[in-house]
Amino acid sequence: MNMGSKSLNLSEGRLAQILAEKITALQVFLDGSEDNKTLIKLMEGLYPSEIAYLIQHLSEDHRHQCVMRLKDQFNAEILLFLSPSLRREVTNCFDISELSKILMHLESDDALIILRDLEEGQHQEVLRYFPSEKSRFFSERLRYPQYTASGLMQSEVLVFPDHWKVFQALEHMRSCHTPRFYDVFVVDASRRFLGAIELSTFVKCQEQETLSEIMTRNVHAIPMDWRQEEITFMFRLYELISAPVIDTASRIIGVITVDDVMRVIEDKVAEDFMHLGGIHASDFHETVRKTSLGRLHWLMITVIDVILISLVIQYFEAVLYFKQGLTVLMPIAAAMGGNSGMQAATVAIRALTTRDLNTLNMVRFLWKEVSVSWFNGGLFGLGLGGLAFLWFKDVRVALVLGGAVLFNMLWAGIAGTLFPIGIARLSGDPALSSGPLLTTTTDVLGYGLFLGLSYLVFRL
Amino acid sequence: MNMGSKSLNLSEGRLAQILAEKITALQVFLDGSEDNKTLIKLMEGLYPSEIAYLIQHLSEDHRHQCVMRLKDQFNAEILLFLSPSLRREVTNCFDISELSKILMHLESDDALIILRDLEEGQHQEVLRYFPSEKSRFFSERLRYPQYTASGLMQSEVLVFPDHWKVFQALEHMRSCHTPRFYDVFVVDASRRFLGAIELSTFVKCQEQETLSEIMTRNVHAIPMDWRQEEITFMFRLYELISAPVIDTASRIIGVITVDDVMRVIEDKVAEDFMHLGGIHASDFHETVRKTSLGRLHWLMITVIDVILISLVIQYFEAVLYFKQGLTVLMPIAAAMGGNSGMQAATVAIRALTTRDLNTLNMVRFLWKEVSVSWFNGGLFGLGLGGLAFLWFKDVRVALVLGGAVLFNMLWAGIAGTLFPIGIARLSGDPALSSGPLLTTTTDVLGYGLFLGLSYLVFRL
Repeated sequence: MNMGSKSLNLSEGRLAQILAEKITALQVFLDGSEDNKTLIKLMEGLYPSEIAYLIQHLSEDHRHQCVMRLKDQFNAEILLFLSPSLRREVTNCFDISELSKILMHLESDDALIILRDLEEGQHQEVLRYFPSEKSRFFSERLRYPQYTASGLMQSEVLVFPDHWKVFQALEHMRSCHTPRFYDVFVVDASRRFLGAIELSTFVKCQEQETLSEIMTRNVHAIPMDWRQEEITFMFRLYELISAPVIDTASRIIGVITVDDVMRVIEDKVAEDFMHLGGIHASDFHETVRKTSLGRLHWLMITVIDVILISLVIQYFEAVLYFKQGLTVLMPIAAAMGGNSGMQAATVAIRALTTRDLNTLNMVRFLWKEVSVSWFNGGLFGLGLGGLAFLWFKDVRVALVLGGAVLFNMLWAGIAGTLFPIGIARLSGDPALSSGPLLTTTTDVLGYGLFLGLSYLVFRL
Repeated sequence: MNMGSKSLNLSEGRLAQILAEKITALQVFLDGSEDNKTLIKLMEGLYPSEIAYLIQHLSEDHRHQCVMRLKDQFNAEILLFLSPSLRREVTNCFDISELSKILMHLESDDALIILRDLEEGQHQEVLRYFPSEKSRFFSERLRYPQYTASGLMQSEVLVFPDHWKVFQALEHMRSCHTPRFYDVFVVDASRRFLGAIELSTFVKCQEQETLSEIMTRNVHAIPMDWRQEEITFMFRLYELISAPVIDTASRIIGVITVDDVMRVIEDKVAEDFMHLGGIHASDFHETVRKTSLGRLHWLMITVIDVILISLVIQYFEAVLYFKQGLTVLMPIAAAMGGNSGMQAATVAIRALTTRDLNTLNMVRFLWKEVSVSWFNGGLFGLGLGGLAFLWFKDVRVALVLGGAVLFNMLWAGIAGTLFPIGIARLSGDPALSSGPLLTTTTDVLGYGLFLGLSYLVFRL
């Protein structure tokens, strides 16, 4: 590690800078040399994640060229670190027999991630190249629901009978190859889960101690049908590094580790983030075509919203000719309501995801948001009403604007809380649907209230 | 674990349901009984995180009562799992000497989290009750910048000289109490970092092997001044569980573990989420007063936005009397631009955080967004222009609306990409400032384009 370098690119950091240099070197190499051996050597010292990062930054041409030239030495773990759309692009460079050959070396949970990403027919074909036992295993695993413990777990798990002594466990560990593990799981004669020993505690034990004496009982195990939200909640609550997955008879059938959970947590909050911004999933790595099409959905909803606004304005249009200034102030109540509603909805959506918001405190939270809306609605109703008075010297204009702002912000606070909660109750995704619903109602109500109140004040 | 229960509350899950039952029991108990011993017993079987979850769900009165009654047995780890505002509320139940007594039992990185949360004067006072060595240690640590490796690390770290044999390391581990660890770090005579051994590899080694022979060299170490974004990027890239923190002479001074990193990652994306929704940080646990005040900032920006819109409308107001229908269509271009701009900005902000977007592919990404905007802008410009024609039977109205939509969406795509990148370059927070800037420009431009084009078409 070069500690002497002080010329850090502060906004991107040292690590990204090192990778950037490698990308540039790779691009130059791909353009200038046909020498595959040097290319393979260039990649040899790198982690699969680093190679994925490099590949992700290449142009489509370079990427294809690079993958084709590395083909014989391609480490399937690279696929895991690619974004889904690039993963599909890269797997398409391989034919079925090549693909099955590289996938065979992956841990079971990782191989499943790639297999699930293939098209339906394709993964059946890949499995045909697997040894029959492995093929049966994966066919079985692919049938488990993806977003549950059984879909997420890794089948390679070390378990030890409770009557074993520490040295027996150690001998067994030495004799078999398993992926990295963090806890020692102890089972009874029927493989039923009894307890766990953290590895850093286990190493300190004397060779003659019996596992049942040193294990911690009442450790958390994950029923195989638990959904991933439940699992992340559990890992967070108990700060777990790994946890066994059990079937309905409490037998250990796999293990879930913290890296799987981190991926789920991050994917979930990133997904919420995208939904709040009006996108289904990040299209950063997608083509122009797919990106454009993927964004139409939300823009279509905006069209419905603006058509509704137009209809509201048309309905009340006549009143705008009665009093100068009304047209100028027309969009204000809708904008204030929309933004204050999104504030309430954002807090509610996040709190639903982290499970801070639930049946127990729903009413208290709604009540609080109503109070906040009264306060902020009152404040901005007064302020904007006051401004309107100074501008147009007409107390009726001030009253109309102030009233519309107050009531729309009040509605925004209530809807911004109730929509996410209601959608979650109906097993929908609050982050996805709350925004459009909320914006449409605050827009329609914002214009409707302002113009409707104007009509009452100026025409009746 | 009760595997028989099938009456799961599907939207909240079994774990939350169990906790909910405990909360209800606790509320009933707090109201009905003065018996502190039973209360302490009730809490004894629970993890600190569970107690924090329960406390978080109580009303302020109940919470205060509960903390006061548990005071003598209060486990400081509970504080770590509370949201910052509730943490302050709970620590205020303790006087300084009580607080220092409970904090003394925490691991160094955890104690620091609590100490940093106290007011300036307060943590000096707490430290005065610590043994002098510990007090000096924490004063020193508090001076490290919070968001760097040195602020994040845990000082308790086991290191072993490279010439030691496995059994010597084991003996040493047994003799000292350290927090859970996942890797064995190997150093030279001056404590300089040489390599690491994953614990699950270490347990498999023979007692007589020398550490320098079994360790992995070129393992990633974190320079103490690295910022947390850099550290999370590194953990993600190399799927690390723990990594040593080194000073400028490569000596190990601490360790960062995956749970710290998970917290940072989740906090960061949750923060981005809040910023996108117009909130500084989640105010879920804040009082009405603090919530209302905390949201004013963003609403004030909305006020500036609507005032600008009003001025634009006023400037062009005369044209609205020339052609019926213009008023009705006025808000459309602004809304379409605002939403398509937020789509581009959302993808850019997230990609900046995950470092998918950087100097290397900036131009390519901008170019892609411009193409997407042309496509979608053209599509919706045509569609909405067509609708306007059907509605008002005037091709000039259709041209004005279509043009305004197209050009505003084009601007939105460019600005939605350039604002986040530019703000990140200036070391600002793209998630915080992109939204307001973007919305204000698309609003002003949306109204300006529509009314300006109308002026050109209908009055000149």
